[in-house]
Amino acid sequence: MSQPLKFYFDFLNQSSRALYILLEASKIPFEAIPISMLKGEHLTGEFRDNVNRFRKLPAITDHGYQLSENVAIFRHLAREKLVPEHWYPRRHLGRSRIDEYLAWQQTNMGVATTEYFQQKWLVPYLQKTRPADNAVNLASKQLEHTLNEFEQLFLNSRKFMMGDNISYADLSAICEIDQPKSIGYNAFQNRNKLARWYETVREELGPHYKEVLGEFEAKLKGSGSGQQQGVAQAVKQ
Amino acid sequence: MSQPLKFYFDFLNQSSRALYILLEASKIPFEAIPISMLKGEHLTGEFRDNVNRFRKLPAITDHGYQLSENVAIFRHLAREKLVPEHWYPRRHLGRSRIDEYLAWQQTNMGVATTEYFQQKWLVPYLQKTRPADNAVNLASKQLEHTLNEFEQLFLNSRKFMMGDNISYADLSAICEIDQPKSIGYNAFQNRNKLARWYETVREELGPHYKEVLGEFEAKLKGSGSGQQQGVAQAVKQ
Repeated sequence: MSQPLKFYFDFLNQSSRALYILLEASKIPFEAIPISMLKGEHLTGEFRDNVNRFRKLPAITDHGYQLSENVAIFRHLAREKLVPEHWYPRRHLGRSRIDEYLAWQQTNMGVATTEYFQQKWLVPYLQKTRPADNAVNLASKQLEHTLNEFEQLFLNSRKFMMGDNISYADLSAICEIDQPKSIGYNAFQNRNKLARWYETVREELGPHYKEVLGEFEAKLKGSGSGQQQGVAQAVKQ
Repeated sequence: MSQPLKFYFDFLNQSSRALYILLEASKIPFEAIPISMLKGEHLTGEFRDNVNRFRKLPAITDHGYQLSENVAIFRHLAREKLVPEHWYPRRHLGRSRIDEYLAWQQTNMGVATTEYFQQKWLVPYLQKTRPADNAVNLASKQLEHTLNEFEQLFLNSRKFMMGDNISYADLSAICEIDQPKSIGYNAFQNRNKLARWYETVREELGPHYKEVLGEFEAKLKGSGSGQQQGVAQAVKQ
């Protein structure tokens, strides 16, 4: 059945994975529409005119209302749908603290993980070359710095970033970290706090996360495209 | 009198100006605390420990609750204070559209205006040198591209970005554009739509905007620091 909420995504993109898991975990009815970034399906005039004028992923249309940008989509869902409170808690100004993290993520963590992923995997994949050592080293240094900042600024002695309950900050962050991690980067060396937090979040997210991560890693091996579409359709219809 | 909301800012920073004007225009009581970025006052251990662990501006403390990041502060004000509805309208999914713009701004417009400002003014000012032509040209090209995108993606035939009423998207965007404009960049050449929108927003914002822009431009001329502190204190106490 066609759903009023259509979600356009590619599991190669970390925000696509985070929002997909949020939609699933929140039991929000949606139609999952995989779009292949590697094939440039998000860059076509048809996609621009009918789905998203930014030509970016992830994107949604909600009763025909087109919306782009990860954090805007997240807040749209929190406002317009029934998203369980713990993902974006009102108590103790939790929403302000999550907003702060998401803004930080956008200009720090997201830039560093994306650059590393591009230099180490995407550019070599598209150009059929080996990764350029200089560019990878530079991206690697930036990522080191950002992960240190993340551990220092956002992790503490509590289970999750916002306290005893998992929030969208944790979900968004773990998907960011999987971007370099899934192509061999060791994020946990000398970062015990990060390693503990990662394991706790992974366990808490359960099967939704594992399924999506599996799809992502299958795509990295060049075998995920058909399977992804299959699972997404099977799960959502 | 000391206010529960303390706002730490430097008018050299575009988000500081946008939030200051929003606070003023919304008549939210706040204590204005100017911090000199040129003197590195936001980088001290005291600022980090007592005001903002990110060591960034703008920042607030609200009854002692510390918050960083422009967009997070904006949403905090919209949730916790009495901000007039038109700045962040619920109608017609206006909040989703404003969130979309603010996210776009953070990784596009904000990066381009900041880079241009740094290369053309800040780095030469701090290092007492002339601007590096190559770096300025590069930043200028990026800015051209971003302004074209802004005009194309966000401006239309209506008065303001969201329709007939001014919103925080307009306020935030005009402060971004003032960053290069106030140091001599012509943003309006071949951009009639942008020029019309800019003039409309400027008029609508009235004296709050003009006062803050005046302070910013005085600082650029090296004469603003004492004056800014004076006006801010006079206005807010």
